[in-house]
Amino acid sequence: MRGRFISLEGGEGAGKSTQLKQLAQSLRARGLDVVETREPGGSRGAEAIRTLLLQGEQERWSPRAEALLFAAARADHVERLISPALERGQWVLCDRFLDSSIAYQGGAGGIGKDAIMELHRIGSCGLLPDRTLLLELPPEAAAARARQRDGGEADRIGARNARYHAKVAAAFAALAQAEADRFRRIDATGDADQVTERLIAAIADFL
Amino acid sequence: MRGRFISLEGGEGAGKSTQLKQLAQSLRARGLDVVETREPGGSRGAEAIRTLLLQGEQERWSPRAEALLFAAARADHVERLISPALERGQWVLCDRFLDSSIAYQGGAGGIGKDAIMELHRIGSCGLLPDRTLLLELPPEAAAARARQRDGGEADRIGARNARYHAKVAAAFAALAQAEADRFRRIDATGDADQVTERLIAAIADFL
Ligand SMILES: Nc1ncnc2c1ncn2[C@@H]1O[C@H](COP(=O)(O)OP(=O)(O)O)[C@@H](O)[C@H]1O
Ligand SMILES: Nc1ncnc2c1ncn2[C@@H]1O[C@H](COP(=O)(O)OP(=O)(O)O)[C@@H](O)[C@H]1O
Ligand SMILES: [Mg+2]
Ligand SMILES: [Mg+2]
Repeated sequence: MRGRFISLEGGEGAGKSTQLKQLAQSLRARGLDVVETREPGGSRGAEAIRTLLLQGEQERWSPRAEALLFAAARADHVERLISPALERGQWVLCDRFLDSSIAYQGGAGGIGKDAIMELHRIGSCGLLPDRTLLLELPPEAAAARARQRDGGEADRIGARNARYHAKVAAAFAALAQAEADRFRRIDATGDADQVTERLIAAIADFL
Repeated sequence: MRGRFISLEGGEGAGKSTQLKQLAQSLRARGLDVVETREPGGSRGAEAIRTLLLQGEQERWSPRAEALLFAAARADHVERLISPALERGQWVLCDRFLDSSIAYQGGAGGIGKDAIMELHRIGSCGLLPDRTLLLELPPEAAAARARQRDGGEADRIGARNARYHAKVAAAFAALAQAEADRFRRIDATGDADQVTERLIAAIADFL
């Protein structure tokens, strides 16, 4: 039986990486075989592209080149890691996926959702998660969490201004509304264990 | 006045790089301001992507990821180098462009022309050369020239088998037929100066 594909989305500091670990642990305790991965990256080729995307100066790539690089990394990740794992029956938990491209490059970057979806169709046969968990946190709380993280300095995309990140949050909210079947909006305030309980509740129908 | 955009296409060893230099010289002798460039690469970001594309093992990228990486490099090259030069009135001579992606990834790689054109529309607003000069040489002659080149070893794509390269040649020929207004098929046999004369004749209407 094919495994479940679950993505975690949200802005910087929302708690995605923390929750991915905790959710994986919780699912493993239920006897499931879980693969933890992330974007951009997750496969060897995609991690090489990640370096191009997250390092260097702010104006390194135009929004169009950036969107194509994300799609290239995702194509490699889907073909080499995600799809084979799902076919083996493993559950795949992914820290960011397509919806980050729609919210960041598509929404805040101005490329538009349709172009991002078209790139995803060409690159990754349009593969969608079975469920997307959107972690929502007020911007000040997210910024405070991001600062307290190891090192605390933002990457090339995280370092963009508050206006860009406000557009990202608006794009995520619009997506969650437009694709209510796939998305669950998760209150990411409170301690990490509380949030994990909310995530488990939001995939209870798969368990 | 906008400059002219001319691409040189053809398989490995056809003489593109040699002819690009000689054609540039000849056009400069006529008083034109000429920019010489190449793909993949030609701008800082695109040259970084070139390294990912042309180095490493043969199976490094799936055909889909490869096509997206070429489109990303081209988007950067067009936006940062080609379009600004044309707007300044310079002529741009480019060693490979979109048609190489159509022939290699689209034709020989199996992605199809439509997907490559769609990536080009999203990445580079569908910019086409004013003229594309296709250098045609029998495969044995091209292979002999490629071997005699400095170093002589092929890159990741040049190293593919004869069947792949035969598909590339067929795809180029089909393109030249389908877009006869833009393409000129050039006999690339004979010495380099003779070939340059044929190229000049094939753009005489622009001079
Ligand atoms: N529920 C929480 N309460 C308090 N701090 C948290 C919580 N979840 C995560 N953090 C901390 O906030 C910072 C950012 O979390 P992280 O999981 O890296 O976010 P993201 O991956 O979404 O950017 C980390 O230092 C993490 O330990
Ligand atoms: N017309 C020609 N006659 C003989 N040798 C040539 C001719 N044109 C190019 N060469 C040589 O053939 C090799 C391949 O040419 P090059 O311009 O690098 O081809 P390409 O860029 O199409 O791969 C080089 O060593 C070059 O000097
Ligand atoms: Mg994280
Ligand atoms: Mg060459």
